Amino acid sequence: MSEPVLFTTPAMAELFSARALVASMLRVESALARTLARVGVIPADAADAIAAACRVELYDPNEIFAESAIAGTPVIPLVRMLTERVDAPARGYVHWGATSQDVADTAMVLQMRDGLALLVHELHAVADGAATLADRHRRTVMAGRTLLQHASPITFGLKAARWLALTVRQMRALDVLRSRALPIQFGGAVGTLAALGDAGPHIAVSLAEELTLAVPDLPWHAERDRIASVAAAPGVTAGAMSKIAGDVALLSQTEVGELSEGAAPGKGGSSAMPQKRNPVDAMSALAASRLALTLVPTLMSGLEQEHERAVGAWQAEWVAVPQLFRYTAGAVAHVRQALEGLEVHEDRMRRNLDLAGGTLMAEALGVALAPHLGRVDAQDAVKAASARALREGITLQRAAAEDTRIASILSAESIERALDPSRFLGNTDALIDLALASFREQP
Amino acid sequence: MSEPVLFTTPAMAELFSARALVASMLRVESALARTLARVGVIPADAADAIAAACRVELYDPNEIFAESAIAGTPVIPLVRMLTERVDAPARGYVHWGATSQDVADTAMVLQMRDGLALLVHELHAVADGAATLADRHRRTVMAGRTLLQHASPITFGLKAARWLALTVRQMRALDVLRSRALPIQFGGAVGTLAALGDAGPHIAVSLAEELTLAVPDLPWHAERDRIASVAAAPGVTAGAMSKIAGDVALLSQTEVGELSEGAAPGKGGSSAMPQKRNPVDAMSALAASRLALTLVPTLMSGLEQEHERAVGAWQAEWVAVPQLFRYTAGAVAHVRQALEGLEVHEDRMRRNLDLAGGTLMAEALGVALAPHLGRVDAQDAVKAASARALREGITLQRAAAEDTRIASILSAESIERALDPSRFLGNTDALIDLALASFREQP
Amino acid sequence: MSEPVLFTTPAMAELFSARALVASMLRVESALARTLARVGVIPADAADAIAAACRVELYDPNEIFAESAIAGTPVIPLVRMLTERVDAPARGYVHWGATSQDVADTAMVLQMRDGLALLVHELHAVADGAATLADRHRRTVMAGRTLLQHASPITFGLKAARWLALTVRQMRALDVLRSRALPIQFGGAVGTLAALGDAGPHIAVSLAEELTLAVPDLPWHAERDRIASVAAAPGVTAGAMSKIAGDVALLSQTEVGELSEGAAPGKGGSSAMPQKRNPVDAMSALAASRLALTLVPTLMSGLEQEHERAVGAWQAEWVAVPQLFRYTAGAVAHVRQALEGLEVHEDRMRRNLDLAGGTLMAEALGVALAPHLGRVDAQDAVKAASARALREGITLQRAAAEDTRIASILSAESIERALDPSRFLGNTDALIDLALASFREQP
Amino acid sequence: MSEPVLFTTPAMAELFSARALVASMLRVESALARTLARVGVIPADAADAIAAACRVELYDPNEIFAESAIAGTPVIPLVRMLTERVDAPARGYVHWGATSQDVADTAMVLQMRDGLALLVHELHAVADGAATLADRHRRTVMAGRTLLQHASPITFGLKAARWLALTVRQMRALDVLRSRALPIQFGGAVGTLAALGDAGPHIAVSLAEELTLAVPDLPWHAERDRIASVAAAPGVTAGAMSKIAGDVALLSQTEVGELSEGAAPGKGGSSAMPQKRNPVDAMSALAASRLALTLVPTLMSGLEQEHERAVGAWQAEWVAVPQLFRYTAGAVAHVRQALEGLEVHEDRMRRNLDLAGGTLMAEALGVALAPHLGRVDAQDAVKAASARALREGITLQRAAAEDTRIASILSAESIERALDPSRFLGNTDALIDLALASFREQP
Repeated sequence: MSEPVLFTTPAMAELFSARALVASMLRVESALARTLARVGVIPADAADAIAAACRVELYDPNEIFAESAIAGTPVIPLVRMLTERVDAPARGYVHWGATSQDVADTAMVLQMRDGLALLVHELHAVADGAATLADRHRRTVMAGRTLLQHASPITFGLKAARWLALTVRQMRALDVLRSRALPIQFGGAVGTLAALGDAGPHIAVSLAEELTLAVPDLPWHAERDRIASVAAAPGVTAGAMSKIAGDVALLSQTEVGELSEGAAPGKGGSSAMPQKRNPVDAMSALAASRLALTLVPTLMSGLEQEHERAVGAWQAEWVAVPQLFRYTAGAVAHVRQALEGLEVHEDRMRRNLDLAGGTLMAEALGVALAPHLGRVDAQDAVKAASARALREGITLQRAAAEDTRIASILSAESIERALDPSRFLGNTDALIDLALASFREQP
Repeated sequence: MSEPVLFTTPAMAELFSARALVASMLRVESALARTLARVGVIPADAADAIAAACRVELYDPNEIFAESAIAGTPVIPLVRMLTERVDAPARGYVHWGATSQDVADTAMVLQMRDGLALLVHELHAVADGAATLADRHRRTVMAGRTLLQHASPITFGLKAARWLALTVRQMRALDVLRSRALPIQFGGAVGTLAALGDAGPHIAVSLAEELTLAVPDLPWHAERDRIASVAAAPGVTAGAMSKIAGDVALLSQTEVGELSEGAAPGKGGSSAMPQKRNPVDAMSALAASRLALTLVPTLMSGLEQEHERAVGAWQAEWVAVPQLFRYTAGAVAHVRQALEGLEVHEDRMRRNLDLAGGTLMAEALGVALAPHLGRVDAQDAVKAASARALREGITLQRAAAEDTRIASILSAESIERALDPSRFLGNTDALIDLALASFREQP
Repeated sequence: MSEPVLFTTPAMAELFSARALVASMLRVESALARTLARVGVIPADAADAIAAACRVELYDPNEIFAESAIAGTPVIPLVRMLTERVDAPARGYVHWGATSQDVADTAMVLQMRDGLALLVHELHAVADGAATLADRHRRTVMAGRTLLQHASPITFGLKAARWLALTVRQMRALDVLRSRALPIQFGGAVGTLAALGDAGPHIAVSLAEELTLAVPDLPWHAERDRIASVAAAPGVTAGAMSKIAGDVALLSQTEVGELSEGAAPGKGGSSAMPQKRNPVDAMSALAASRLALTLVPTLMSGLEQEHERAVGAWQAEWVAVPQLFRYTAGAVAHVRQALEGLEVHEDRMRRNLDLAGGTLMAEALGVALAPHLGRVDAQDAVKAASARALREGITLQRAAAEDTRIASILSAESIERALDPSRFLGNTDALIDLALASFREQP
Repeated sequence: MSEPVLFTTPAMAELFSARALVASMLRVESALARTLARVGVIPADAADAIAAACRVELYDPNEIFAESAIAGTPVIPLVRMLTERVDAPARGYVHWGATSQDVADTAMVLQMRDGLALLVHELHAVADGAATLADRHRRTVMAGRTLLQHASPITFGLKAARWLALTVRQMRALDVLRSRALPIQFGGAVGTLAALGDAGPHIAVSLAEELTLAVPDLPWHAERDRIASVAAAPGVTAGAMSKIAGDVALLSQTEVGELSEGAAPGKGGSSAMPQKRNPVDAMSALAASRLALTLVPTLMSGLEQEHERAVGAWQAEWVAVPQLFRYTAGAVAHVRQALEGLEVHEDRMRRNLDLAGGTLMAEALGVALAPHLGRVDAQDAVKAASARALREGITLQRAAAEDTRIASILSAESIERALDPSRFLGNTDALIDLALASFREQP
């Protein structure tokens, strides 16, 4: 009954596997026992015995999740089985003071922390790929495009630098969340830790230390704002990957031809069309990104939770959080692969600049005229020349040279100069340097 | 690396398993070969050889899906492996005339058809449960509640009849889609079936017959309106289940106490609170419903597809469609279980009617007064009496009897009669009969 | 405090304006009074007096909606104001037997019916535009593209025919909903119509006749499956429009240049780039489509409703339904405008076929070879020739002629013939005729 | 054609009105002119003339937005009208060096900054309300509820403290975004600021100073991660409000009766049921929260943007961002109103503790027994006693006293003590103090 594993990575699939969830819950039970022993609430022997039974090899995840459909939570069968694996008198101290949600939530938080680290790691490889492209192609002039139309020139290095800056922002955001936003859950049945008398807060601090997680202000069983906020970040990351993947796919179009994904045996072919070289990594990144974004509203709309523990909205997180991480990892990994093998067709970039009579340089010509004519009249003159160029299929250079208003101000040489894309790149170099520097600052 | 299987049913999980998808794709390849032989495009021997190799046991789904990450589609590795399993000269006729999306889409459509049938079957059991409750409790008076406040009386039978009508509407909608809305996909690389010369349309009709699917007007590789429309229906069904599950959870509240889910060993307990009897099926239905609804916007927003085959939006369906069916099945199954064992506490329903001094009957009193005072003044009088009852903690009956305006019109006996919930049920019985009759009409 | 009106049409904005909602609620109150008089529950004089006061000019929508924030529904202030505008004794019969949700829901249903009709009307114009293009360009050969790569040839007429079929399916779906799926709401406070004694069902039938709406099986105050189902249809329509708009935008790219939106004064320019001719209608359709799709999950996830009337999920429909219709109308209208003025650059379509050495015809060449070599070996041969053509920048025709395997089977003439795009269009003409016929069948 | 204004506040509606957007765009144009004059790019006189024409009173928002449907952006008509209102030679310097998206984005960012401030302000009032309740009711014992079932006791003060902590977290998150996350947009047509030569970065810093906004690393026309991240925060806030509103609605149920929203003339009545006192603010907050959450996925899924400026996904923000702020403001304001007038029925809270035989105290009894029996056997004993209490309708106290295992360990007095809810509150007081202290630290 296994589902086809699509649009994720083996590492992230493993991190959120059934077995990994059991291991994470056992890690919490073990940490709880050790903490309680450390603060003197339960005997050290009991903690040792419990910890010894918290090895994942001793449990069958399928059995636990089958029972969980009846019990309503996997923690109840897990605690039962753990208790069976511990001898008296230690067995009486299993799961002491905790409620099942304490274990389920903290276990999920541990997985999320690892998941965030894995995403940051993979994003670093994306950033590496983008940084290499940004530096190598800082002078590779290409068309800048707005609303899918040629606008003004940029360099491919600048485009890659913007991919880089976008990626670095995601790395930073995820890393901040990983190191700061994830607290243990420890409140007992209704958040009072009443079963532990006055010792609750002290034990909570120790438990958090044991797991190197943050101590929350208050228990948060039914206040899922942290989960929703943390979930938004992989969502934005997945979206960011779709921006890069989308650009790769668009630049790989047969008519554009400026990029190709690296070839590999069996990659991107077609069963009927042997010439095809499909942008398969871009495609998979786009699909994975869509699937990741699917889960964000699920987690956000789940904030309406009843009283001290919700009936349904909380439990849906058990599926939504793992899937969010899985598909985000898929989006990041496929973008990484797309960038790593990327073939950049500089000649095609150069040639495409001349499409439409080179009217891509109209803004530049307007800038050259504006000090003489003012912005408005300069644009009027350029608009007329551009329109003629497009209408008659001639170059903007010729149309400009033949326009009396323009020719009365700019010599043929000045027009040619004004229409040279490599001279109309503004602060492109500085922006690329900025993006590279910002990436290199990353730890 | 298997994911915990939560909030679905084994049958639906199986229907959309990796193995089932491979089997469905093989079924399409086999049907294609048989069809082509039938219309004389390929030799009958070749079709037999191909069909013989289309047994799912001969394939390793994991291998296929691992390769699909590079190929961009599971059809390419599948066709390669299928070709390997067929001897020359038949092997030259494998996948003849088709494009990979023809196979992937038709395979998914076959799974959707089975999925819809499974949902209808399970909904029938929900309807059965609701029908039994509707009939048995047609006279069991309880509070009708609006905005979570007592409003006017209903019967539990009427509530169950509305659950029933809601469920029957979903059965019908899904059944209509199953039998009419699902066509084959057969267009070849770009929808022209050019590889088959003029024979395409004729073969398409035969292929659809072979698979007992509809023939679409035109190929629909990049027009996913049918998929989105069909997907909306399980979404609405999942939402419908959340209505029923939500009512069960609310009526099971400790303070309301009108329903309990049936007890079962290990069901609905708590690790720390031994008295708990949680509405676990309602909870699971609510979680599953949320997860199912998650997928609908994914499928709808995927309608923006590029040219003749999309880059990302189509491929995301391979995950979204199976998950939609899985979680919808989970929602339906848990509602079925909740209704099958449902304990109805009639005494508590009766007692709750007297809460708030029986002011639930205010509308009824107003109706009794309206012919004498007009609607507006009748409501004013009742409002004053109700307010007094609530303020002083007395019954509405007493407050009404002591109100001079009311007492001047209605005798004490008439007031008592007006305040009898079982006399203020309007056309409840007729509505229940209507819902039952509509269900029994179902095939 | 008015919001900028973006991405909709004046007609749809008007249909869901504050004033139109008040008018629709008044229409329901008036119909209720007339119906009650017709069946003898209230005096005919009273009905006349009430109907006379149900003119929208007598009310200030701002006042009603300002009060509704406190009352929780616009019906309460409306009924109060209506009652004030009717003299005794008729005023006592205002809103007789109904609950506020009966009026709010039925008023919204009436607006939805008009909204569906408006969408169908506008879709008809889209279909007209697509049909004209399909017929005119049935032989205009262009590249078919999959995953944004050249695949095999189609005609622009076929592309337009698929847009047409997609649009016609939406017209049909919306029209079926308009004529069948929309019932009155009439249940009184808790769905029993208790205030009307036994007469409820009979009155419901009459009221439905009065408004030419359907009679529902049962009242549906808290079962919103119909609303969600009906809402899904404009959502799918908006998505369908994004498919067409997306194709227009992609084909208008500077590098593709096969389509341009019609020019108009002030349309699609840029403040800085005078040569720009942006696909503004496609852009607006894409934006409107996104916004429309936003509302579908809102309405679907609102199915979880408490008891006999929900606290929040129902009320959110008051915003979500109008917005859904507004933005869907915007998407449809902008696609209509894009198609009406569309400039088709046939020369560019023809020229683009030769890009990449004409390897777009690889599948066709494979088909010509397959009867001689079998599908697998034929594809191998074509793959080798295609790869050489792409690598060396020569045409596929030359590479094929110089390939010994191919040349041993096909003469130079046969190769040329096999590589003629206009000879590899399969059943294109028949498909276009099918789409046109299906549209012309529409009433 | 104005839309009914529902589920927002007048202040937020005004902040995102058509007029406010025009004013914000004019503010950017004026700041740009002043900045350019300051750095010596344009004459000071010209800047003064432009700034003088940037008064919103001089413009008709309706005219601008009507034209924007054709132009594709409101900036083009605005710049044209602004240019008309400036005399030569200054008019030639209007909008110098900028692209329309620079103005549209920066104008939206300014509105978002004000919107965040408004939300923080309103959240402060919510926090005030919650803090007052937390402090006043720190000893008001009530049932803690999980999965809508009685679990263990808490105090109403603790519940309010958790609402408070939740609210304070949102205030902090929004405030951090307001002060740090919002940069200007300034990149010119394709992000190179080529029209300004080398001066671009320097001018960008000055412009950001002028508007007291941050300077972004790179222009971000097509990288909307910041917008999506900032948008997530109001989404989470809206969700947080739904948690509080949901609790208020549930605790106001007739059967629970622990809270009522404050009464006000015209508030929460019903047209047919004069006794109704609906939780109208909770309802409106729940509806507004749903509507706000609707917009988050729209903004997140919009991250896939083409090249240097998107065709559709960007433009959809013009509607989605204002609506997100509007409905979030509505959710916050209605929660504020619900809390400000909240009536707390302490007697009912006390009485509800005794429902179900006081089995709410089962966990507490287990804790008292655990040191003697171990956790497992203690829970077994309590489970048996609880089951008997529920089955026979007696109190847990009596069932415990009559249980030989329990009675052999605990005296009648110890049992009574163990079952006293006010003695089983763990660290409730400390948690409340923590939440209060955290709020009071807020600036």
